[in-house]
Parts: sequence; C-alpha cells; structure tokens
Amino acid sequence: MMGPIEPTTNRRAFLSTLALLPALSAPFLVTPASAQTVTSVAALPSWNEGPAKQAILDFVRDTTDRANPKFVPPEERIATFDQDGTLWVEHPIYSQVVYCLERVPAVVAKDPKLKNVQPFKTVLSGDREAIARLPLPELIKILAATLTGVSVEEFDAEAKKWIETAKHPRWKRLYTDLIYQPMQEVMSYLRANGYKTYIVTGGGQDFVRVYAERVYGIPPEQVVGSAGGVKYGYAKNGEPFLTKEPRFLLNDNNAGKAEGIHLMIGRRPHAAFGNSTGDREMLEYTGAGGSARLMMLVLHDDAQREYAYGPAQGLPDSKIGTFTPELYDEAKKKNWTVISMKNDWKKIFAFD
Amino acid sequence: MMGPIEPTTNRRAFLSTLALLPALSAPFLVTPASAQTVTSVAALPSWNEGPAKQAILDFVRDTTDRANPKFVPPEERIATFDQDGTLWVEHPIYSQVVYCLERVPAVVAKDPKLKNVQPFKTVLSGDREAIARLPLPELIKILAATLTGVSVEEFDAEAKKWIETAKHPRWKRLYTDLIYQPMQEVMSYLRANGYKTYIVTGGGQDFVRVYAERVYGIPPEQVVGSAGGVKYGYAKNGEPFLTKEPRFLLNDNNAGKAEGIHLMIGRRPHAAFGNSTGDREMLEYTGAGGSARLMMLVLHDDAQREYAYGPAQGLPDSKIGTFTPELYDEAKKKNWTVISMKNDWKKIFAFD
Repeated sequence: MMGPIEPTTNRRAFLSTLALLPALSAPFLVTPASAQTVTSVAALPSWNEGPAKQAILDFVRDTTDRANPKFVPPEERIATFDQDGTLWVEHPIYSQVVYCLERVPAVVAKDPKLKNVQPFKTVLSGDREAIARLPLPELIKILAATLTGVSVEEFDAEAKKWIETAKHPRWKRLYTDLIYQPMQEVMSYLRANGYKTYIVTGGGQDFVRVYAERVYGIPPEQVVGSAGGVKYGYAKNGEPFLTKEPRFLLNDNNAGKAEGIHLMIGRRPHAAFGNSTGDREMLEYTGAGGSARLMMLVLHDDAQREYAYGPAQGLPDSKIGTFTPELYDEAKKKNWTVISMKNDWKKIFAFD
Repeated sequence: MMGPIEPTTNRRAFLSTLALLPALSAPFLVTPASAQTVTSVAALPSWNEGPAKQAILDFVRDTTDRANPKFVPPEERIATFDQDGTLWVEHPIYSQVVYCLERVPAVVAKDPKLKNVQPFKTVLSGDREAIARLPLPELIKILAATLTGVSVEEFDAEAKKWIETAKHPRWKRLYTDLIYQPMQEVMSYLRANGYKTYIVTGGGQDFVRVYAERVYGIPPEQVVGSAGGVKYGYAKNGEPFLTKEPRFLLNDNNAGKAEGIHLMIGRRPHAAFGNSTGDREMLEYTGAGGSARLMMLVLHDDAQREYAYGPAQGLPDSKIGTFTPELYDEAKKKNWTVISMKNDWKKIFAFD
C-alpha cells in the first residue's frame, strides 16, 4: 500500500507482525528437567551444517547436561527473541506500521474532523511518496490515534481481523506466512529442552500478543514489547473494562529491551536472538551474565530468497534494519554468532 | 522496631514480604492438560469443610473437566494472589516498609548529609511514635531512598540478606514463617491442576521476586508488583548493568492491579484472591470475564491465632488492611467467597 520509509531506529518502537505455522502443540507446556533432550540429529532440519547451527546444538547440549559445568537449572532457562527481522520479514516496512496506516480511515470515520488534519490528511490521500516522507513525530500521531482510545477487547478484535487477512506486497501472502522456518525450529528445540521462549520486540506488546500463541507457540505472558498504559473504568452496565491510553510505559528498543526484560521477566536470559542495533543491549546484557550464554544475530544477506541489507552488503544506510558495521564488529569481538540467511538456512519460509 | 502506622490505601503501594515452606518442587513445571487432577479428598488438608473449601474444589473440578461447560483450556488457567494479608501476615506493618526503615542507617552512611534531613532524622532517632506519625509523602521519600539508586544485583543481595534474618515482633519468627499454610495449599492445588499462579501485589515487584520462588514456588516472571524503572548503563570495565531508578512505572494497587495484570500477563485471570479494597478491581476484572471464575477474599477474624480486623469486627477504622463494609457488601452481591480465617482454616501457619 505504500513505498519504503526512511530508516530510523526510533521507528522500531512501533513495529510488529506474525507467522504461519499451524499452532504448535501445547505451547504452555514447559518440558520438565527430567524430559529427554531432543536428539540433535533430528533438530534444526532447515539449517545447513555450519558454525551457527553448531553453536545452538552446543549451547543446548552444555546447558542441559547436569554433568556439564555450563549446566543451567531448568527454571533459569530463558531465551529471548526479537521479532522484526529476527523471526519474520521486516522489509520493506514493519507490518504493524502498515496496520496503523490502514486503520486511519476507520479512525477518521469515528472522528471526521481529523479528515483535514495532518498527518491524517496525507494518509487518506493515498499518496505513497508523501506518506513515506512523513516525519517521525507525525508517524507517532498516527500510531497513537490508531492503537489507543479503544478497549483492549476492541483492539484485539481489529488486530486479529487484520493479521488474518493482510498480505505482504512481495509474496502476496499473509504476514504470518513470512516467519523464518529455521527460527521456528530454534524456538521449538529450545522449548523441547526446557527453555521458556520469550518475544522481546520493539513492536507493540498488545499487537504481537494477538497472534503470538497461534503462530509462534508463545503465550501472551511471554511477549514483551513496547507498551502503553491502560486505564480501568466501568461501562454503563457496571462492567469493568480496560482502555488503551496514549501513555508510553515501555519503549522496548535498545536499552529498553534490557530494561523491559528486567521488568517483565525478572531474570537474565541465557540465550538472545536479534538482528539490529535495537537488539544490541539485549545481547550485551545476556552475555554479561557469565556462564553459558548464547547470543546470535540474523544477517540479511540473501537478496534472492529474502532481502540483503546490513554490513555484509556495504549498506550502512540500508532502508530498514540497522545491522551496522559497528554492531558486526562488536559481535565478532564478543563471540556472538552471526547467522547468514544465505549460507546457514536451507529454507527461509515453511512454504519454500 | 516501631508501632503501627495509620491506615492508608496508598501505603499498600509499598508493602511486601515472603514465606517459609521449603522450595516447592519444580515451580516452573505446569501440569499438562492430560495430567490427572489431584483428588479433592487429599487436597487442602488445612481447610475445614465449608463453603470456602467447597468453592475451590468445585471451581477446579468444573474448569478441568473437558466435558463440563465451564472447562478452561490449560493455557488460559491463570490464578492471581495478592500477597500482604492474603498470603502472609501484614499486621502490624508491611514487612517491606520495615525493611526500608531498617535500611535508612546504611543509606545515611553512604550519604551523611541526610543525617540531619527529614524524614531520615526522625527514623534515625528511633522514636517509634514519631516514626509512626510520618506522613505519606515523607514515607515515600524513605522508600525511594532505600529501594533505588543501586544496581539490581545489589538490591537483590540486600533484600535477600534481610528476609533471611528479620523477624516478626509478635512471633519472633522469620516473616517467611508467617505465610498462611491454607493458601500455600490452594496455590499448590491449582498448580497441580494446570493453573499458573501469579502474585499480584501492591508490594515492590523486585522485593517479592527475591524470595517468591523459594517460599511460594512462584518464579520471578510470575510476580507482578509495584515497579519502578531501571536504567541500563556500563561499568568502568564495560560490563552493562541495570540501576533501580526512583521513577514509578506501575502502582500495583486498586485499579493498578487490573492494569498490571494486562501489562504483565496479558490474560484475564480465572481465579483471584485478595483481602482488601486494594484487591477490589482485580476481583471485579476477574469476575467480568464470564464463564467459570473464582473470586475470594480472606477475612481476618481470628484475633487469637492471627489478627481480627475488618467488617466482621465492626472495625471500619482498622489499623491496617481495608476490608471495608462496602467491600463486604460487594462480595455478597457478586457471589465472591469470603474466607473466614477463624472458621475455614484448621491451621494458620505451617508451624501451628
């Protein structure tokens, strides 16, 4: 519906999206300590042999073996995953931003005086170039208007309807079809070995919760994201309900990811997965915990099957995502593992 | 160390505490849907037969039986518990407030100019009457000074040391010895039937997380409480760490409990337990979910074995806790179950 927007780390505050796999079985079911480890031979079928796959297998082997000095007690097995660009496609624009732009007509219908007010006027014009040029403060007005002022239930119903029908412009498939199959396998493998998997996203917490259980097997209580406040009140019939407010509680990007993990989980992760500078502090915080930790960054270097952007392409001003050369250097220095989509992944999507 | 303080609902924003049972086995382990229901005959041994015990047994029976119209899918089985006055003794003063007052000398030692500044001067004087008369804004200064400005790890270490040694003035036992045994049994029974148990406390989230896993079998990620922000930063050696800031993110009392449940859990509970007006909205919100819900309020009517305060004693101005006559009326009207400590509980504490 619109062209790419300029990059800005702050825009990561409002991303979001989902994926296509059939609901995983019993996502709430955490494997007990005594459960058998999934054999590594069968694990990660969509991964090519190589250092990235091996890093995951080694980490799981070490941290689940009581005889290994790197053993991690089951209750401390926390793994966190960024969403956009790490679990699913973020290019050319975060799906949650598309959602917000597409909600504008409905918001204006409820409050017609917005029709001639910027930035709503520009969005309604359908002028893709002009929409793409909207500066961040104007974009934030759109996000606030389309994500707040409604009850939690109304929001859930609208977002659910959208995510079940909206399609990506390139593949003409549901956004939820564009989850990376290899990452689904990593999450399943970790869960099968007693890890609790969390999404820690710059996207809206409430937005991602709408579909995370169905498509990732991650329940709402394990979705940490950018969050606004809600306000308790009563309907005319006396029934209480919660209204989403334009009051920012947590900007779950950059340092906010480490801070959000403390607020929402209260434990330091043992494994963390990201793909951009927005994930840097989450990986640093994870790595600083000592003992066995796994830090991984997805590198988008596959223009054919997905997109190529980031340091490997010499694109410091890539249109979206900010896997900068500096982040690449930090990863090398700190032994974080870089996942090459091109080399490490046999397939990208379940439908490949 | 000091006399009782005047009641005020706002003070519930800063309470907190813990309990004594040995660590429950595998608290992270949620029973799958297929697991057998703990037979109700063996359940709740510290409860007398009566409507309160029966309400719990009926609720579990109905919501775990697939053939029952009130069946609740395992992933939606969420139960929330207030802490102070619901899970352990809150009289004569919230243990977390005692903690903060006892931390004052250490804070002043680090910043000697506070010695002659109020309210620190009063606290250092040891004048119990004067301390008890400190107005709320002054008390908040003490809480802010003693709970923030340190790293998350330093705070955890201090709180842990305190909770493992500090004793209640009446029983001369650890605060963690003063957990209500019947409530431990309810939590265990619910967990054995696939419920995830959460603490939803007006007390400090970080404070309660220090001991909740050990004494209640509730992991940090299932503790929702009043929370301040943390700030990500780097030590001189480059290691990242989080500092507790005097910035209030969530006042987890009254409406804040329903709001905090949305923020931190993202699902409406099916069972909620409280004991005061601070828990009213949590119970209302739970009850408004339709289908099978269990709402219970602990009534402190046992002056001999614990304390008596609240409507049953005709004490509208009770010194602590605010189980008002209005709350009692709402409970009756909405079929919330009132638990009489005197009549429903065979024993109060594990050591009884």
